Amino acid sequence: MANSQFKFELIAQDGNARAGVFQTPHGDIPTPIFAPVGTQATVKSLTQKHLHELDAKLILANTYHLYLRPGDDLVGEMGGLHTFMGWDGPILTDSGGFQVFSLSDMRDVDEEGVTFKSYIDGSTHRFTPERSIEIQENLGADIMMAFDECAEPYDRDYSESAMHRTHRWAERCKGAQTREDMALFGIVQGGVFPELRKMSAEKIASLNFPGNAIGGLSVGETKEEMHAMIELVNAILPEDKPRYLMGVGTPPDLVEGIKRGIDIFDCVLPTRLARHKAAMTDMGRMNLVNAQYARDERPISETCSCYTCQNHSRAYIRHLIQAKEMLAGTLISIHNIHTLLSLARQLREAIINGKFDDFAYNYLVNYNE
Amino acid sequence: MANSQFKFELIAQDGNARAGVFQTPHGDIPTPIFAPVGTQATVKSLTQKHLHELDAKLILANTYHLYLRPGDDLVGEMGGLHTFMGWDGPILTDSGGFQVFSLSDMRDVDEEGVTFKSYIDGSTHRFTPERSIEIQENLGADIMMAFDECAEPYDRDYSESAMHRTHRWAERCKGAQTREDMALFGIVQGGVFPELRKMSAEKIASLNFPGNAIGGLSVGETKEEMHAMIELVNAILPEDKPRYLMGVGTPPDLVEGIKRGIDIFDCVLPTRLARHKAAMTDMGRMNLVNAQYARDERPISETCSCYTCQNHSRAYIRHLIQAKEMLAGTLISIHNIHTLLSLARQLREAIINGKFDDFAYNYLVNYNE
Repeated sequence: MANSQFKFELIAQDGNARAGVFQTPHGDIPTPIFAPVGTQATVKSLTQKHLHELDAKLILANTYHLYLRPGDDLVGEMGGLHTFMGWDGPILTDSGGFQVFSLSDMRDVDEEGVTFKSYIDGSTHRFTPERSIEIQENLGADIMMAFDECAEPYDRDYSESAMHRTHRWAERCKGAQTREDMALFGIVQGGVFPELRKMSAEKIASLNFPGNAIGGLSVGETKEEMHAMIELVNAILPEDKPRYLMGVGTPPDLVEGIKRGIDIFDCVLPTRLARHKAAMTDMGRMNLVNAQYARDERPISETCSCYTCQNHSRAYIRHLIQAKEMLAGTLISIHNIHTLLSLARQLREAIINGKFDDFAYNYLVNYNE
Repeated sequence: MANSQFKFELIAQDGNARAGVFQTPHGDIPTPIFAPVGTQATVKSLTQKHLHELDAKLILANTYHLYLRPGDDLVGEMGGLHTFMGWDGPILTDSGGFQVFSLSDMRDVDEEGVTFKSYIDGSTHRFTPERSIEIQENLGADIMMAFDECAEPYDRDYSESAMHRTHRWAERCKGAQTREDMALFGIVQGGVFPELRKMSAEKIASLNFPGNAIGGLSVGETKEEMHAMIELVNAILPEDKPRYLMGVGTPPDLVEGIKRGIDIFDCVLPTRLARHKAAMTDMGRMNLVNAQYARDERPISETCSCYTCQNHSRAYIRHLIQAKEMLAGTLISIHNIHTLLSLARQLREAIINGKFDDFAYNYLVNYNE
């Protein structure tokens, strides 16, 4: 598949940290970048205008959820995800693999694919690599992901067999792709086992995808293990393709990942924390329900330029939380997503200016996990 | 109390319909106008930026709710409602009277005031006319309302005694006012009884408030009764003061009220219907959960210029409803509030152009209740 509409250009490097631009049919994605997650074709509680105002350059949607509801056929009939959700910027869909393995109590995996029950109504469904690509092509995002098998991170035997199957499925996904206007990314698996991660990175690199992802991290392993796996894999993955660390997204995770050569991140954390009334800041998390904020006229962060911080006090947001008002979730989501998007922009700038290490050091020193 | 910052200028009349401008310290309010309701200092699911984009010129907040949570003292300390909620346009607060009588299971009314239990925690509280003004002055809106007693509309004896008490309380509210930068409006009561409404309108008119309201309607009476009461009261209320019909707000209610000389409306309907997945349109209500909209690529209304209709299909909004996504409520609220604000703007234009009757007739003929 010749993906002539996708080009990755590296514009600066500082140590292993990279600044680049990934061209897609719906616009350029400056990297490093954080992608907010719109599981059901909506980044929870935000309008698409909010996302544009936040300068989000890439958003993610979940194939598993959209396949089950409203159905990829319906989304396809409505003109694909961009038209359906009214978002004209780049979109990435995952393969459904992670959700099939994490959300489905009853699933049955064989060499051909996975049979699972819907989390909505218990009905039986089957994904194969070919079906995942068909569904993702109906959804019509800019970037789609190979269908992979996600193993428990500490089970050596399962990790190895799942990895090998993921490799065979990656080749089948490649063969199943029909749309040239979508880029298919491969996924490296292998749990927390260096020799498996090395083998997987070499295999996925050899398949020459227009981009590569690291899956199966941030699922229970330590930060040290995660960092070691990223370093090991990125030493093998090609430098001229974007590298996407799936499902990872605290502020320190972005700094540590970018330091080790990651270009793309996604995570539900900013909107999920917002629903739990917690703000993400450059200094750490802040639980806005705390009584200490009841009469606090300051914004969530005094150095933040987001809509929420420019217009509202902690006291007002805490009132909205106490009063169970929806606006609380919207305002905190705007702030949290801004925190990650702004951090990625600052890190990119630091890379371009050759000051990544200083910036990263200062950021991590001031951050309280 | 000399309210020199408040001036009402009538710029056109067409029959009994009036177009005017009410000047307040936070900006001019073109009338007729619909005021979205922000019960707890937030118009449910919308940011204040959404309200500005909708060109809302006046919003309402509820004294009863804000007194109980977060407390009018806290709002006052934070600089008053405008600063607290980040809204720099005109705000109106009600007196708390309606909620004391409608939300409190246990209440005890005497000549001095009302003792009631909090709907939040059952604690005991007391409002008097003087206390209502004190609380409203702490909240610091542009327009505040006299504390009134709301009777059952069909109980003649109760309506009469409540009306007389409302008159005595109106005088006490006037005496209690200390802030010149807030306008206190009087409220006409009297249920569905013409002789009571007439007596009440005469009494309230004689107190020379900078604006007058009609309370106790849209509480179970027929439309014919409501229209008759409005006509009768507006024939007595002074022409050079704005007239506010409290808690009324379907599209036909706006047309019928404006036809009879009403200038200001408020209602929770647009946001409440949005939470129940119903859109308000110029043709009637539309239940967006219906299966017929699953693949409907059209906007809610093809003639609507709101953000929702300019960007999203019925199919997408129905998907958001099915998926229980918050964005559904936000998008429908934007559309519903736009419908009422836009209708008021069109009616104002028709009055100025001397075409009110034609516009009203065509609108009502095409509207299906």
